[in-house]
Amino acid sequence: MTAASTPSSAAGAAQAPLQIAITTGEPAGVGPELTAAALAGAAAHWPDAQFVVIGDAQLLAQRAKAVGVDWASLAASGRVRVQHVPVAVPAEAGKLDAANGRYVLTLLDTAIDGAMAGTFDAMVTAPLQKSTINDAGVPFTGHTEYLAERTHTPRVVMMLAGTGQRPLRVALATTHLPLKDVSAALTIEGLVETLRIINSDLRRHFGVPLPRILVTGLNPHAGENGYLGREEIDVISPALNAACAEGIDARGPYPADTLFQPRYLKDADCVLAMFHDQGLPVLKYATFGEGINVTLGLPIVRTSVDHGTALDLAGTGRADAGSMVAAVDAAVSMARHRRAA
Amino acid sequence: MTAASTPSSAAGAAQAPLQIAITTGEPAGVGPELTAAALAGAAAHWPDAQFVVIGDAQLLAQRAKAVGVDWASLAASGRVRVQHVPVAVPAEAGKLDAANGRYVLTLLDTAIDGAMAGTFDAMVTAPLQKSTINDAGVPFTGHTEYLAERTHTPRVVMMLAGTGQRPLRVALATTHLPLKDVSAALTIEGLVETLRIINSDLRRHFGVPLPRILVTGLNPHAGENGYLGREEIDVISPALNAACAEGIDARGPYPADTLFQPRYLKDADCVLAMFHDQGLPVLKYATFGEGINVTLGLPIVRTSVDHGTALDLAGTGRADAGSMVAAVDAAVSMARHRRAA
Repeated sequence: MTAASTPSSAAGAAQAPLQIAITTGEPAGVGPELTAAALAGAAAHWPDAQFVVIGDAQLLAQRAKAVGVDWASLAASGRVRVQHVPVAVPAEAGKLDAANGRYVLTLLDTAIDGAMAGTFDAMVTAPLQKSTINDAGVPFTGHTEYLAERTHTPRVVMMLAGTGQRPLRVALATTHLPLKDVSAALTIEGLVETLRIINSDLRRHFGVPLPRILVTGLNPHAGENGYLGREEIDVISPALNAACAEGIDARGPYPADTLFQPRYLKDADCVLAMFHDQGLPVLKYATFGEGINVTLGLPIVRTSVDHGTALDLAGTGRADAGSMVAAVDAAVSMARHRRAA
Repeated sequence: MTAASTPSSAAGAAQAPLQIAITTGEPAGVGPELTAAALAGAAAHWPDAQFVVIGDAQLLAQRAKAVGVDWASLAASGRVRVQHVPVAVPAEAGKLDAANGRYVLTLLDTAIDGAMAGTFDAMVTAPLQKSTINDAGVPFTGHTEYLAERTHTPRVVMMLAGTGQRPLRVALATTHLPLKDVSAALTIEGLVETLRIINSDLRRHFGVPLPRILVTGLNPHAGENGYLGREEIDVISPALNAACAEGIDARGPYPADTLFQPRYLKDADCVLAMFHDQGLPVLKYATFGEGINVTLGLPIVRTSVDHGTALDLAGTGRADAGSMVAAVDAAVSMARHRRAA
């Protein structure tokens, strides 16, 4: 496993440490061991933070061992504390068991409740398996939707991001719906609200004073003046005009295959893509598995890895912790900005 | 301007030189000067080829000067010959004039006729401006469609590619149509025929013995077993099964944001994406403006730059010739494979 390479710099250590919750996710997946791997360097990388790891204590100790992390002495350091939630049945690496479906939800609920109460400054989520929760009889479409519902947030925005000085950030106007339904899901008001959320959260949580948001078109060549579709004229441009009138630096609509070139991206703080497969392939290509997922628009700070449970790698210690380190680093950085605001 | 960095290696020089036609495209755009810049190193880079530059001779000499190329001595070398087609009115860099719309089409017709007759082994097209041709009263949707029609080819496949040892190649199942019409445009038979064309042309013109083609899904996460759309189940998978039964190494459907990661791409000879903005943003991001456009399925070899006329740069000598060099290099390489077959 790789450790953090360029963690964010610490703010002054005079204040009380930031409290960062981590939900360890699906117990048969790589979440528990990636958490341990990421936190092995916690004291050095994030000296102003304490981590509350939410999960089954025995499971965590076992999986930490798989990645060569001495969990007991990590806990003794005072930097990392386990908030024990017992699994319903013992979890075997790689073997899903619906009996632990509600366990995974309890981890989430614990983190959300603590973040809403102000006990946690941010929460980081390790991957879960939707099917385990659904098979346990609880309808569940995804972390993002669950967080929105539990925090009574009418609209959230999914944003994926790389790491580094001026990272590539891609937010989505629509997320998990069939491609043929994307056009009908785009509305002027929805896009304006999405731009407001991106603008506001990049200022509050990312320290970007005046975020520049580049917006894609929906159709090839951004519709080519209406020849290849009218959504740019009827929906996207009016939304951009309305957002600009509010002082948001949103520009476009640009053809996606033009916009996603390094020479244009270098001037952007965020790209707003119209749909999943327009925005995420470039992001994942560019971040080489070290991308993170951030939910914008929530009353709390939440980051996540950008990969799944990797059942085939669970328990082997071979999964790459790069995305988990990046997700923790982003959560700490966002919590710092939020506190300073 | 940058010259060719890694041109393809020459085959034996015993045979008659390959004849490569270049249409210089929109006379107000960068096509003429990029042609001159790319051919400046022709003798060194492509010793087994002769180039027939189709365009207005006076215009070419002028624009060659803008990029510091001595057009007269290039012509004297015997490597480069101008097939003079006079402009209708003098062309000013950066200023479109519909009076030259038919001139641009004449360049294309000359190259297509020569290629169909066997006089040219391949043709390379510099960018044109669709509006100039349409404003001249000729309905025109694009190079690719025009080539298909003029060569009586019922189905062609647009493929964009990078350069290098194992370049990223992305072919499209659909091209220039509104996003909301993409789903209805996908059919089992159409996808099978597209896979046949990719498989056949990569063998004939690219020297790939058994092309491995990775195929994306249409919907996010390739439909997630039908939860996010059924085209993967109803159309794409049956097409893949049919293609595999014919001995084509086509695999998928894969989620686009998984497939377009370097670790998966390294095993692919080509990616077949379902639509324009799913496939091209990654390709253009990855190729940094040195990508090329190839039309598969034609009875002739045709390559093109992957950019437009760049009117603001025309005549300045500041346009990057990287894509033009790559397009010429690919045409020469494809012509060699075709001759050897």
